[in-house]
Amino acid sequence: MRRRVNVGVIGFGTIGAGVVRILLSRRSMLKQKTGLDIRLKYICDKDFSYDRGIGKVPQELQVKDWKKVVVDPEVDVVVELVGGTKIAGEIVLTALRQGKSVVTANKALLSERAKEILSIGIPGKNLFFEASVCGAIPVVKTIREALVTNKIKGLYGIVNGTCNYILSSMFESSLEFKVALEQAQHLGYAEKDPILDIEGIDSSHKISILSMLAFGKYVHPDKILTEGISRIELIDLLFAADMGYRVKLLAIAQEEKEGLDIRVHPALIPEEHMLSNISGVFNGLYLRTDTAGDMLLYGRGAGRFPTASAVVSDIVDAARERISGIAGREVELNFSPKVAEIESRYYIRFTVVDRPGVLAKISGILGKHCISISSVHQTERAKGRNNTVPLILLTHEASEKEMSQAIKEISELDVVKRTPVLIRIMDL
Amino acid sequence: MRRRVNVGVIGFGTIGAGVVRILLSRRSMLKQKTGLDIRLKYICDKDFSYDRGIGKVPQELQVKDWKKVVVDPEVDVVVELVGGTKIAGEIVLTALRQGKSVVTANKALLSERAKEILSIGIPGKNLFFEASVCGAIPVVKTIREALVTNKIKGLYGIVNGTCNYILSSMFESSLEFKVALEQAQHLGYAEKDPILDIEGIDSSHKISILSMLAFGKYVHPDKILTEGISRIELIDLLFAADMGYRVKLLAIAQEEKEGLDIRVHPALIPEEHMLSNISGVFNGLYLRTDTAGDMLLYGRGAGRFPTASAVVSDIVDAARERISGIAGREVELNFSPKVAEIESRYYIRFTVVDRPGVLAKISGILGKHCISISSVHQTERAKGRNNTVPLILLTHEASEKEMSQAIKEISELDVVKRTPVLIRIMDL
Repeated sequence: MRRRVNVGVIGFGTIGAGVVRILLSRRSMLKQKTGLDIRLKYICDKDFSYDRGIGKVPQELQVKDWKKVVVDPEVDVVVELVGGTKIAGEIVLTALRQGKSVVTANKALLSERAKEILSIGIPGKNLFFEASVCGAIPVVKTIREALVTNKIKGLYGIVNGTCNYILSSMFESSLEFKVALEQAQHLGYAEKDPILDIEGIDSSHKISILSMLAFGKYVHPDKILTEGISRIELIDLLFAADMGYRVKLLAIAQEEKEGLDIRVHPALIPEEHMLSNISGVFNGLYLRTDTAGDMLLYGRGAGRFPTASAVVSDIVDAARERISGIAGREVELNFSPKVAEIESRYYIRFTVVDRPGVLAKISGILGKHCISISSVHQTERAKGRNNTVPLILLTHEASEKEMSQAIKEISELDVVKRTPVLIRIMDL
Repeated sequence: MRRRVNVGVIGFGTIGAGVVRILLSRRSMLKQKTGLDIRLKYICDKDFSYDRGIGKVPQELQVKDWKKVVVDPEVDVVVELVGGTKIAGEIVLTALRQGKSVVTANKALLSERAKEILSIGIPGKNLFFEASVCGAIPVVKTIREALVTNKIKGLYGIVNGTCNYILSSMFESSLEFKVALEQAQHLGYAEKDPILDIEGIDSSHKISILSMLAFGKYVHPDKILTEGISRIELIDLLFAADMGYRVKLLAIAQEEKEGLDIRVHPALIPEEHMLSNISGVFNGLYLRTDTAGDMLLYGRGAGRFPTASAVVSDIVDAARERISGIAGREVELNFSPKVAEIESRYYIRFTVVDRPGVLAKISGILGKHCISISSVHQTERAKGRNNTVPLILLTHEASEKEMSQAIKEISELDVVKRTPVLIRIMDL
């Protein structure tokens, strides 16, 4: 039986260089541990002129045209680390059509072009993407292999390190959002243009992929209710803490009788829950299962080497599948699952004029929409301009539809200044 | 290529019944997910007379003689769930010699008879034991597969649910050890004879196995420094909390320049650390790695279905290896690694007579042994019989050898009543 597997890495950026470094420096370690000789045959990039910080890379491995990699009959595994959804998509689809196994860390590509890619790529057979969600943390392997005999009931993930860093530093250092974001940018934890992260889009890509794996149900990211953290203020974190909660950006997917409940938004989580304790750039995925019970996987969700660690683990698995040629671990996919209506408890912060009768007006509108209030908090903690004060309401379970209608009506009241801040409560 | 894999389950107790239930009820789900037809051929036990709470089990599967299972040429995978180290050992060794793949949840067997078993069993090739450590949590799979390209630096585990339940309920409900133990026994979280759990022996079995996997270094449990929790009092948990720590029973293995540092003992852990937040019967393994960074795997470490979930995941992996016949994921084993001397910071609680000069005497002895004190706490919180008071010292890094010598000398002082309580501090 052959033991040699040839790998072509396309995309020699931050992650690509990490993968190359590992494949070159740990070839014998991998051989000893896996019995496989994993040989890096190509490193492909348009530009080799700048230093990647991993020392010299053999000249003979370098190629500039990705087509050369995917058509070479010797290449077994193509590693796509280009990013984006266009050329990356072409690379992945061409490689699969050429009969290669593909490893990718590209969550945008997988979640946005899932139908095309999964028409020829079989997860766990010729398509591997551990690094696309939660970096080094083996969430894909755990769902597919360790939990093979489980029905998964719910996934609750802190899957974006940028947002978690910002929310953690707001809370721990009493910063407003803007300052924490600037600090994160300064430290390299947030991009110059941070929209994909802070508006929850990156998280929606990831929960789209996880839902596909866990439930066999695929929802395009555009169809996922997605709210980011840019409207959260320090005062919300403090009020939440007073009530025993932490605020986290959560990616959620749970199977309900009515359909799949899938969404991304900030949520109040009880402070004693394991997810509340995840701070800084770390990621965590909390899983509810019917056989194994509850589980949390926690670790580094990004960064050169943590992500490369997951990519190389995938390369090994791809190599093994390739050599053994046995059945893949398949997931039966539903590309148009029924999506459930959301019901939730809510934290709402209104900015209101400090005048009698305000609470009566607001609670009247909520009542009309069958939304019942579980607690009210009004303090002078932060008296604002124009004599406004924050008014915090916590509600019982309510329909999202009714809530957004009610919020619209309340926002039109004279006594209500600024758009209300609404955060869902997850009593995990 | 064949798809059918025949399984014999030996031991029809709590876990065995869970495994049988899953194999019978989820055969088609497993087939769909894995492409393999996993057929339960035998259930073996000496006694089928009592109800296992999983409904009726087909008569034709039941056998009483384990030898019938391991010699049947049709059987591919033997699942050993008998427990103990004698007959279980005979079963595992015979099955391996017969060319079967073996799945076991038996940590005592694996850790105590590792040399014999690993002389013919290759982890990940024909020997699978995910369920032996941390129940449902995929610690073995993660170390072996997800972290294949990592050098692991340290493992810090809460691997015994009984101890963690007791320490949690002591702290949360202000109970003394004895009361919390009785409560745990009442709830079925502790055995009638709880020695294996509360004295740390079960944890030493588990860290012996984890060290073998993570470092390729095997240490017999008898050679592992092992302390349990039976001497911990509520007052220790409260003092620790005052100083920002939680007390957990930790199983530790870390590679040091001087050798392998492997041990089990209660430890003070900073309260903000993820491990401090693990309460009740849950388990968690914290891993330090050189490539993936830090990671935590958390979940149910025991119980019928969580453990069965891991066993069935192993059965699937064993079946795949068997059919593919490709190289195992091997670990090169060192059966006599150098074991490092321990250095640590310490929390020490002395019970002393409330009289001037006591602190001077104690600190004099510590100084003679080059142990320097980082803080002293003496309160009237718990004035005891004979006018004694607790005196708490925290030390800087000190040698374990010097410390035990110093403690011996201090214990002989007139003013010191009762044996001092010593808990190591892990500044994770």
